[in-house]
Amino acid sequence: MPPLIEYEESTGLVREVFDDIRATRQTNEINNFWKALAQHPPTLQQTWQSVKAVMSGPGELDPLVRELIYLAVSVTNGCEYCMASHQAGAVAKGMTPGMLGELLGIVGVANMTNRLANGFHVPIDDKFKQA
Amino acid sequence: MPPLIEYEESTGLVREVFDDIRATRQTNEINNFWKALAQHPPTLQQTWQSVKAVMSGPGELDPLVRELIYLAVSVTNGCEYCMASHQAGAVAKGMTPGMLGELLGIVGVANMTNRLANGFHVPIDDKFKQA
Amino acid sequence: MPPLIEYEESTGLVREVFDDIRATRQTNEINNFWKALAQHPPTLQQTWQSVKAVMSGPGELDPLVRELIYLAVSVTNGCEYCMASHQAGAVAKGMTPGMLGELLGIVGVANMTNRLANGFHVPIDDKFKQA
Amino acid sequence: MPPLIEYEESTGLVREVFDDIRATRQTNEINNFWKALAQHPPTLQQTWQSVKAVMSGPGELDPLVRELIYLAVSVTNGCEYCMASHQAGAVAKGMTPGMLGELLGIVGVANMTNRLANGFHVPIDDKFKQA
Amino acid sequence: MPPLIEYEESTGLVREVFDDIRATRQTNEINNFWKALAQHPPTLQQTWQSVKAVMSGPGELDPLVRELIYLAVSVTNGCEYCMASHQAGAVAKGMTPGMLGELLGIVGVANMTNRLANGFHVPIDDKFKQA
Amino acid sequence: MPPLIEYEESTGLVREVFDDIRATRQTNEINNFWKALAQHPPTLQQTWQSVKAVMSGPGELDPLVRELIYLAVSVTNGCEYCMASHQAGAVAKGMTPGMLGELLGIVGVANMTNRLANGFHVPIDDKFKQA
Repeated sequence: MPPLIEYEESTGLVREVFDDIRATRQTNEINNFWKALAQHPPTLQQTWQSVKAVMSGPGELDPLVRELIYLAVSVTNGCEYCMASHQAGAVAKGMTPGMLGELLGIVGVANMTNRLANGFHVPIDDKFKQA
Repeated sequence: MPPLIEYEESTGLVREVFDDIRATRQTNEINNFWKALAQHPPTLQQTWQSVKAVMSGPGELDPLVRELIYLAVSVTNGCEYCMASHQAGAVAKGMTPGMLGELLGIVGVANMTNRLANGFHVPIDDKFKQA
Repeated sequence: MPPLIEYEESTGLVREVFDDIRATRQTNEINNFWKALAQHPPTLQQTWQSVKAVMSGPGELDPLVRELIYLAVSVTNGCEYCMASHQAGAVAKGMTPGMLGELLGIVGVANMTNRLANGFHVPIDDKFKQA
Repeated sequence: MPPLIEYEESTGLVREVFDDIRATRQTNEINNFWKALAQHPPTLQQTWQSVKAVMSGPGELDPLVRELIYLAVSVTNGCEYCMASHQAGAVAKGMTPGMLGELLGIVGVANMTNRLANGFHVPIDDKFKQA
Repeated sequence: MPPLIEYEESTGLVREVFDDIRATRQTNEINNFWKALAQHPPTLQQTWQSVKAVMSGPGELDPLVRELIYLAVSVTNGCEYCMASHQAGAVAKGMTPGMLGELLGIVGVANMTNRLANGFHVPIDDKFKQA
Repeated sequence: MPPLIEYEESTGLVREVFDDIRATRQTNEINNFWKALAQHPPTLQQTWQSVKAVMSGPGELDPLVRELIYLAVSVTNGCEYCMASHQAGAVAKGMTPGMLGELLGIVGVANMTNRLANGFHVPIDDKFKQA
């Protein structure tokens, strides 16, 4: 795997995406995730556009709730980088230690009941079918 | 798999848990999930206590946010029963169609970036290490 | 997807594997899983050899414990066919309803604590490092 | 992430749970898992009660079999902490190197056949439907 | 969940994306996947752009290989809709029954060895570290 | 976990498998994966036979495509060892940096759409049902 691509050495499409990341996030720092994806510029661009759309676009969910949802997925998948970066992101948007504890409690219990629903072959309640 | 155990035929520990579910949720309806788990009373009791603690206990996350987190995990795991029941639960607590669409967008993107973080072997940024 | 391949219409390598399944399991019945894999004979052969080795070969784990482990994996992955067939397999080898309930309770809790260990970034205890 | 909470510095609900862990496990040592969860006392308590119920409660599965099931789930999920701690737990309850090898063989094969069942769209055999 | 949105009733952003799907795929048919996502137009747009970029954009992997990779992921995740649609997509691009059988064989074995690598705690070979 | 078993110290069944690995791969080097599995010879043998069959056996998929499929599964599962070794394996068979970038882009998007298909409860199109 080639080294991470720093802002200073970026050119063309990569520089364009990096500039948009800086502008959108209002910071000059660019996370290792984007520096690594810069190895394949089309994937960098397509991924950034998706992340930007769901995390920074207009919507009814506030920024903290979006980060909590992102973190819940990352914990479920056991993705170390993603847990570290989105935990930091959530803290930056107002997550307290208590909220993190509650989130992890819910994620754990949801993963437990997901398996119990499968293992007990629970049929979907009629009232949920139109939901 | 034996049939679902209805409230009317429940006894002992199962009846006790069913009564607590009714009281906590303030409805006489009991979901198939609990009726199925009633086949093994200790698992029913232990699971209900966990779900009750994280979903109905005191905390800083409001009830809708808790349901959104639960739903995000269930979608990630592809658990059909859990998606159906917690989507209904979230709607009951105020989730609009727009919020559901946004949540699914985030869950999809998070699952995408989780694999990209792994596949590009992204090293954790120093600033995230103490997070 | 072509239809399931029945014993009567099987030939060559498929017939050979089907005969070995019958002999090993001491029944003339062949499960849909093997009839479906017969569409690609090399995968049928290679898979049967692996399943036979771990489930019917000599070893220290008794047949019921092997089925319980298989079922625990299948529930965790949410594989419907696998849960149905290995639950039946476990029952045939002596699993009682109580044992199934306990197994599902453990599988649920293990899936919960797996996420909590990740989410809390728990460092491995020194004493476990040589385990 | 705040530091692990040691027994000596624990108070209130955390101390109570730690004391129950010590009494149940009959050792003064407390694993990092519990010290980490102590950051959020309600999650610590709820998780410990669940683990205690399924792992130390009365039942038909003996303690070693319970650990093998737990380990099978942890290997399937690729949870490093959980594999390390439950491998140690299983060894403490009598798992030999041969049994570990067999367990891993079964876990591997089950993960293989789980995907083959899905990928070949295998229909559930009628005889398994009532299982 | 509201009904699928048909092309004829689509408007605005949804119509725009539907037209691009038709033009890119050179068929008037639109799969249920896109009709369902049309419930949340921003997710529809962002998802289509990502899929279009990786599946129809310029690149070194030919269209069939791209479909095989997509199918391998879908089988691993056990996503029924995705397996059905991408199996059809791969067949349309030239996948033979033999190739499908081989792909499933590899996917099964990869899922097996993934767990064995974790379960045996295999250290990464030095020669792979710079890969 | 006992140390890796080196070729020089191997005997019996392990030596036999190691010799077959050397002959099949036409190199004297044996990866840590096989040295670790040698702790349980039957699992070593059964796993090697499966890997050899799907990766080196006759078939319609060329060796590079087989490695790409293997890598796609390993990235989806987040198996570090497997990603490292199969990325190296794919490079040895001709994978360029551009192809790796494209593969990761597809794997990311597939994991995204897998969740969206589940989360939007997309019904399978009739035309896909016979696929």
